[in-house]
Amino acid sequence: MTDLSSAPIKVGIIGAGGRMGRMLIEAVAQNPKTQLAAAIERSGSSLVGVDAGELVGLDKNGVALSDNLEAELGKIDVLIDFSLPDSTEKNVQLCAEHKVAMVIGTTGLSEAQQQALDEACEQIPVVYAGNYSTGVNVSLKLIEMAAKAFGDTADIEVIESHHKHKVDAPSGTAFMMANAAAEARGQNLKEVAIYGREGHTGERKPGSIGIHAIRGGEIIGDHSVMLIADGEMVEIKHHARERMTFAAGAVRASTWIVSQEAGRYDMQDVLGLK
Amino acid sequence: MTDLSSAPIKVGIIGAGGRMGRMLIEAVAQNPKTQLAAAIERSGSSLVGVDAGELVGLDKNGVALSDNLEAELGKIDVLIDFSLPDSTEKNVQLCAEHKVAMVIGTTGLSEAQQQALDEACEQIPVVYAGNYSTGVNVSLKLIEMAAKAFGDTADIEVIESHHKHKVDAPSGTAFMMANAAAEARGQNLKEVAIYGREGHTGERKPGSIGIHAIRGGEIIGDHSVMLIADGEMVEIKHHARERMTFAAGAVRASTWIVSQEAGRYDMQDVLGLK
Amino acid sequence: MTDLSSAPIKVGIIGAGGRMGRMLIEAVAQNPKTQLAAAIERSGSSLVGVDAGELVGLDKNGVALSDNLEAELGKIDVLIDFSLPDSTEKNVQLCAEHKVAMVIGTTGLSEAQQQALDEACEQIPVVYAGNYSTGVNVSLKLIEMAAKAFGDTADIEVIESHHKHKVDAPSGTAFMMANAAAEARGQNLKEVAIYGREGHTGERKPGSIGIHAIRGGEIIGDHSVMLIADGEMVEIKHHARERMTFAAGAVRASTWIVSQEAGRYDMQDVLGLK
Amino acid sequence: MTDLSSAPIKVGIIGAGGRMGRMLIEAVAQNPKTQLAAAIERSGSSLVGVDAGELVGLDKNGVALSDNLEAELGKIDVLIDFSLPDSTEKNVQLCAEHKVAMVIGTTGLSEAQQQALDEACEQIPVVYAGNYSTGVNVSLKLIEMAAKAFGDTADIEVIESHHKHKVDAPSGTAFMMANAAAEARGQNLKEVAIYGREGHTGERKPGSIGIHAIRGGEIIGDHSVMLIADGEMVEIKHHARERMTFAAGAVRASTWIVSQEAGRYDMQDVLGLK
Repeated sequence: MTDLSSAPIKVGIIGAGGRMGRMLIEAVAQNPKTQLAAAIERSGSSLVGVDAGELVGLDKNGVALSDNLEAELGKIDVLIDFSLPDSTEKNVQLCAEHKVAMVIGTTGLSEAQQQALDEACEQIPVVYAGNYSTGVNVSLKLIEMAAKAFGDTADIEVIESHHKHKVDAPSGTAFMMANAAAEARGQNLKEVAIYGREGHTGERKPGSIGIHAIRGGEIIGDHSVMLIADGEMVEIKHHARERMTFAAGAVRASTWIVSQEAGRYDMQDVLGLK
Repeated sequence: MTDLSSAPIKVGIIGAGGRMGRMLIEAVAQNPKTQLAAAIERSGSSLVGVDAGELVGLDKNGVALSDNLEAELGKIDVLIDFSLPDSTEKNVQLCAEHKVAMVIGTTGLSEAQQQALDEACEQIPVVYAGNYSTGVNVSLKLIEMAAKAFGDTADIEVIESHHKHKVDAPSGTAFMMANAAAEARGQNLKEVAIYGREGHTGERKPGSIGIHAIRGGEIIGDHSVMLIADGEMVEIKHHARERMTFAAGAVRASTWIVSQEAGRYDMQDVLGLK
Repeated sequence: MTDLSSAPIKVGIIGAGGRMGRMLIEAVAQNPKTQLAAAIERSGSSLVGVDAGELVGLDKNGVALSDNLEAELGKIDVLIDFSLPDSTEKNVQLCAEHKVAMVIGTTGLSEAQQQALDEACEQIPVVYAGNYSTGVNVSLKLIEMAAKAFGDTADIEVIESHHKHKVDAPSGTAFMMANAAAEARGQNLKEVAIYGREGHTGERKPGSIGIHAIRGGEIIGDHSVMLIADGEMVEIKHHARERMTFAAGAVRASTWIVSQEAGRYDMQDVLGLK
Repeated sequence: MTDLSSAPIKVGIIGAGGRMGRMLIEAVAQNPKTQLAAAIERSGSSLVGVDAGELVGLDKNGVALSDNLEAELGKIDVLIDFSLPDSTEKNVQLCAEHKVAMVIGTTGLSEAQQQALDEACEQIPVVYAGNYSTGVNVSLKLIEMAAKAFGDTADIEVIESHHKHKVDAPSGTAFMMANAAAEARGQNLKEVAIYGREGHTGERKPGSIGIHAIRGGEIIGDHSVMLIADGEMVEIKHHARERMTFAAGAVRASTWIVSQEAGRYDMQDVLGLK
């Protein structure tokens, strides 16, 4: 779509005024292969018209926040969308029409919206992932491989830690990790997950997967998967130091997707982990 | 009671044929300050008369297992008792009569039995503790101190790991640790303990203490207490590599108790942690 | 000096335009017991006259950066000084004359400057510490206590981790921790420290303390002290998530020092760890 | 070679009276798929003729220690050999002649001996590995994969912990792990390894791999590989709880090798990690 050797990849960002949008603006600025070309914010926001660079405390970059995605699509190679399901649904349709690649991090798509996305992927290349961190995706692959190798000779326990403000448990990433382990052993996570132990529990149920949620302070996000065999243990740990790492991963995905065929990909494709 | 400089301390062991009894025999043999002088086993056991050294795979030591504690009391400076409440109750009475110091690790004493023990402690010096490991007792002290220093600025979470055969949760040691933290902050553990988080939990309740039980493989016993403040975290971890460490701690206590006044002591007294 | 119940403590900051100075301005704003009353910057800086709140991205707070400490001393209860030895020397003298308490984090004071500080401490209360984090100071106390309790039955190893830009090793905090352990065992750290093992090392030298420096990424600062006995291990870990925690500790110290007698104190006094 | 469904695999053990040999006897007894059929000890040992079961404290199993391997080869499907290079060289030749599969853990083979082994592998299937633990081999694979995925965006550090009696550093397994990471990045470990940091080190050298050796107590063997990127970190840890795990791995390899074609394999083949 673009001659990658001669020019930076032109990136558009949905929800540019939000918390994730601002981090994406910074991440695009930090990645030498990318250049911000469009920043979209919802109609009616007082931020429309503001310079995207100045918004995040960087130098003015000449890209004013716009509330009209369609008008901007001609300027960009790829659109990064971390927004809400209904918004994403519309954006997918527009990108398919205008043949613009996408990197999507929106969660909670309905089944119909997933289907619409699949159809769009016949027209354009799209990365869709629940977590864009390199480390989390590498960890998922490691967990799958370790769970397969140990088979039923290891007991698996997952521990995640997040800040005190988090209102649900366990984290989505902990579920992804537990699921990677369960699938590698041919299990259905719902049937084997255990969330805490208290009182007379009896012996550990063979094949079960314990999932534990630590909460405290301002922890960004730590995850650990333990594979405990009789005489030894393997532990795979991921520590996120700052949220910026997720934005940087999405921008890395945007540099990869622009040279792919139409189709649906995930972060493991981007990282060459398949 | 004994001139410690010139002679080893003569130790008697209750339940010498049991799992803990055998480890105590080994631990006495390993400690240069102690010497086995009596090994008691229940009447009717086929082990009565067997040499205690040979029983545990060491050289013959000339101490035959006996089923008559009273007959042996004249030979010993201190009796180590990790048995059952009713047995311990009788042994305490005999030791008080014969002025023999005791180291007791029996759990589950009734209130009446605790009272009887208190009365005996007016006659003889006794160490009574739920856990004789140096490390666990040091950790309890560290937890108390850290919880006091952080006060309500840190969120506290406890994680313990044990083998897959353990039928209850959390471990007694995890409770002792959580309790040390709660008391240091003037809390009642029962009111603030949380055992697992799942679903929509809401924000972390200020002052709560999370307690999590990992189960897997043949883990002897790991404990971790996290004090999580906004910008930093202190973690106190204890790792037990082998059960022998508990026996060795009891034998260390026996070398200390023989030169104390009558009274009731715990392992923190032995270690000088008070 | 001030009626603490009715009014916030008025804080002055040296080097307000520097990296640590800006964090101190934020930390004062976040602490409900303190209020910024003076912000000093070196004469000639273009920041003189700028509003201290706006400087750090907060609301305007009406405190303009000044290059004249003496003129500001009447407005403040306590001066926080993380600057350079020569600057601190002059500031100490001025504070002693005007009876203003101090919190000092400047490192590298000469012996003469230390002596001058001691003399000033006969006039005013001063906290002087190498590290103002609550967690690090608590950890130092825990390490001392654990090293004493284990005595020569545990082998001690220290591991610290910092970002890839750090040009020296081990960290000052790792030295403080290793030193706390050594002193608790009556050792001179210089005689027992070992910095890395390679090749044919022979058995571990009894009483030695290993100190290991991990370097990578943007790690703010992690420290771990392991006390390894034969059958068990105690580990004391400190994890700094953000540098702000050091500024917050200095501000906490400033709320404590204003109600003390003249004298020299350290962070363990502030935290009640002595 | 054997109908695996109907009969246990008949195992012979070299050096049956040694420390590893005894663990192998136990591991064969514990594995339901294997049965001890020959136990070889050097000529002249007083253990020749002793029952192998009784030797290790199990029930008598009817297999007397023999000093004549050739006479026993007809009774076994596979020979496990953890001995010395010269002994292994002869055993390989005999097994090749008699078409008996092998599992070899002997280290320090000369180049000529390696070549002789390669030639024998044209006649018989052989597993040759430096470490037979499932967990270590899984970890090696995980490290390779993670190092590839992060490429030059992560700094790599290896930490290993062993007992105080170990006379060299780092451990062979730590080298294997560091090497797996280096090769995955196209590096030569010798050129990038760093063993400890002290004094003015300068910034971390890009691409270097730090290797740190902790020594203390009776630690069996812990290994950790950290991949530290700017905003996140992945850590792969292996904890060996008891040496028995290495013997069990070799026995597991023996159940796999008997149904393979002639050729040379390693533990990653056995575990299906390639």
